[in-house]
Amino acid sequence: MLGSGSWGTTFAKVLADAGHEVTIWARRPEVANEINESHRNTGYLPGIDLPRNLRATPDLVEAVRGQHFVFVSVPAQTARELAGQLATLIDDDAVVVSLMKGVERSSGLRMSEVLTGVLDLPPERIAVASGPNIALEIAKEQPTAIVVASDSEATAVSVAKLARNGYLKSFVNVDVVGTEFGGVLKNLIAIAVGIVDGVGYGENTKASVMTRGLAEISDFAVAMGAQASTMIGLAGLGDLIATCESPLSRNFTAGRLLGQGYVYDDVVAQMQQTAEGLRSVGAILELAERHGVDMPIATQIDDVLHGRMSPADLAPHLATDDGPSGE
Amino acid sequence: MLGSGSWGTTFAKVLADAGHEVTIWARRPEVANEINESHRNTGYLPGIDLPRNLRATPDLVEAVRGQHFVFVSVPAQTARELAGQLATLIDDDAVVVSLMKGVERSSGLRMSEVLTGVLDLPPERIAVASGPNIALEIAKEQPTAIVVASDSEATAVSVAKLARNGYLKSFVNVDVVGTEFGGVLKNLIAIAVGIVDGVGYGENTKASVMTRGLAEISDFAVAMGAQASTMIGLAGLGDLIATCESPLSRNFTAGRLLGQGYVYDDVVAQMQQTAEGLRSVGAILELAERHGVDMPIATQIDDVLHGRMSPADLAPHLATDDGPSGE
Repeated sequence: MLGSGSWGTTFAKVLADAGHEVTIWARRPEVANEINESHRNTGYLPGIDLPRNLRATPDLVEAVRGQHFVFVSVPAQTARELAGQLATLIDDDAVVVSLMKGVERSSGLRMSEVLTGVLDLPPERIAVASGPNIALEIAKEQPTAIVVASDSEATAVSVAKLARNGYLKSFVNVDVVGTEFGGVLKNLIAIAVGIVDGVGYGENTKASVMTRGLAEISDFAVAMGAQASTMIGLAGLGDLIATCESPLSRNFTAGRLLGQGYVYDDVVAQMQQTAEGLRSVGAILELAERHGVDMPIATQIDDVLHGRMSPADLAPHLATDDGPSGE
Repeated sequence: MLGSGSWGTTFAKVLADAGHEVTIWARRPEVANEINESHRNTGYLPGIDLPRNLRATPDLVEAVRGQHFVFVSVPAQTARELAGQLATLIDDDAVVVSLMKGVERSSGLRMSEVLTGVLDLPPERIAVASGPNIALEIAKEQPTAIVVASDSEATAVSVAKLARNGYLKSFVNVDVVGTEFGGVLKNLIAIAVGIVDGVGYGENTKASVMTRGLAEISDFAVAMGAQASTMIGLAGLGDLIATCESPLSRNFTAGRLLGQGYVYDDVVAQMQQTAEGLRSVGAILELAERHGVDMPIATQIDDVLHGRMSPADLAPHLATDDGPSGE
C-alpha cells in the first residue's frame, strides 16, 4: 500500500483484516514508526487499532519488492511523480490498483491513465477501487460495499477477492472510466447540496438536487465513455450519498459556506484543505459544452461561484426552465 | 383535490400557488371550515398559511362538479370506496391524478389500477404524481422536483403544466408502473437503512445499503413492467433519499427501532401509525421469488423481523455471499 493517509491506512487495514500480510509505505519515517510500534496512525485515524499483520516502511523499494499487488493512495497531484519512481521497482507482472479520486490538473487525465502511461501497463495490470469511502467509518469496521473495476474482469475479480472481509464487500465491474469519474463528479453535486443546505432547505430539496444531479453527471460520464449503470452503482450514487450526508466532506462544506452567503474567496480562505470540486467546475462545463451535454446544476454552481446567481435561487431552477421535460 | 391530509393539502397549495382556483374536499366539515375561515389546516400542516384561491368543502359533489382535473390523496385502503362514489359524479372527460403511495392490500393492485378499474378510465384520463414528498417541507415552499406519469404523454404534460410554480418543478414520463412502484418499494429500503442506523452505523454503511437497495428494488420493479430509468429518477431514488434521511419517516423509524433491539411486536405497539413497509415485506418477497428476482436486503429484513437474524448482521451481508459479483 503506497500512501499512509486516512484512506490508504484504512484500505491497508481492510486487506490485513482479510488475512493478508500488508506493507504500507509512509513517506514520513515517524508515521511508519508509529504504525510498527504502536499499531496506530493517530494523525489520520485517531483511536483506531491497526492489525499486527500490517506493517509500515518509509522505504519505497522495500514496500513494493516482490509484491504482486501494489495499491496506490497518494494525493492525486503527486501520482505522476510516484509512478516515475515505481517504474523500475515493481515486478513485471504486478497489478497496480488506484484508490485515488481526482484528475491530474495539468493534463486532465484520470489516475489510472496517469499510472498506465508512466508505468506502461497493459489493461490487465491496472485496476481501480471506489465507492462510498468515509475512511474513519470503515476503519471502525462499519459495513461497507465498494466496487473494483478493471478492463480485465479476471483482474477485477482477483483484486475484489483480496479486499473482502467481514465488514467490507467488493463488487466488480469492467468500467474503469465510470468508476473513476464517479469519484470526481460527485464532488460537483456535493457542492450543490451543500449550497441548498446552507440556504436552509431540508431533506426534500436535497433529495431533488441529488437525483437530478446524478442524472446530469451520468450524462456527462457517458459522453466520456462511462457506462450509465456504473453511475447508479457504488462508485457513483453510493459515493454521492455518503459525500452529501457526511459533515466531513470538504466539497459539501464549501457549498454550505456559499449557501450561507460567503463569497468564493472567503470560502477558499476559510478552508484549510482544498475542495477539489470548486476548482473543477469550469473545466467540466467546458468539456460538457464540447460534448453537447446539458448540465444545469453545474452551470448554476458556476453562476453562484461568480456572483451571477444568489444561492437561494439555485434549487428552484433544477433544470432549464423550458416547460415540462422528461426526467 | 380529494383529501385534506398533509400531502393533499400541500399539493392543493402547490396548484393554487401556480395560479389555479382549487377546491379541496375534506371529509370532516371542521377541517373544511378551518381552511375556508382561517386559511390553515393546523392538524396536518401547523404554521402554514394557505393561499386565498384554495377553498374547501365537505361536499364531494361540490368538490368535483365541473372539474377537468381531479387529484386524489386519500389513504390507500380507502381509494376503492371513494372511487365508487366518484363514478357518477366526475365529468366524462375529467383526468384523474393519483397522489397516493401504496397498494391495495386485498388485491395487490396499484392505486392507478384501482381508480382505472372502478371508474373505467381510458389510459389518457389517468395520471400519477410522485417523488420526494416530505409534505411540510414543500408546504414551506422549499424547492422540490416531482414526476408526473401517464401512459399518455400529452396527459402527463398537461398535469405537469398545472403543477409547476416557483418552488416546485414537475418532470414527466410515461412509466406509470415504475412511478407508482418507486413510492411503495422505497419503504423496504428505508426499513433497512433504519435498521443499520439503529445498530449505530454511519453514513458510509447507509450509503452502501441505499445503493444496493436501489439496485434490488429496481430489478423487482422492472420484472413487474417498470422502466429502470424511472427507478433512478425522482419517484425512485429521489423518494428513497428523502425517506431515508427524514426523521419523520415511519418506515425508517420502524427500522431504527428494530436496529435498537426491539422485536417486531414491540415496534408495531410503539408506533401510532402503521409502517406500510413492514406489512409488505412478505408479499414482495413472494412476488420476487415467482419472478426469479433476487432480493438479498429484503430477505434479510424478513429474517430480522422473524428473529432469524440479528440486526447488526444485516449490513455486512449486502448481497448473497458467493464471491465477487457484478454490481
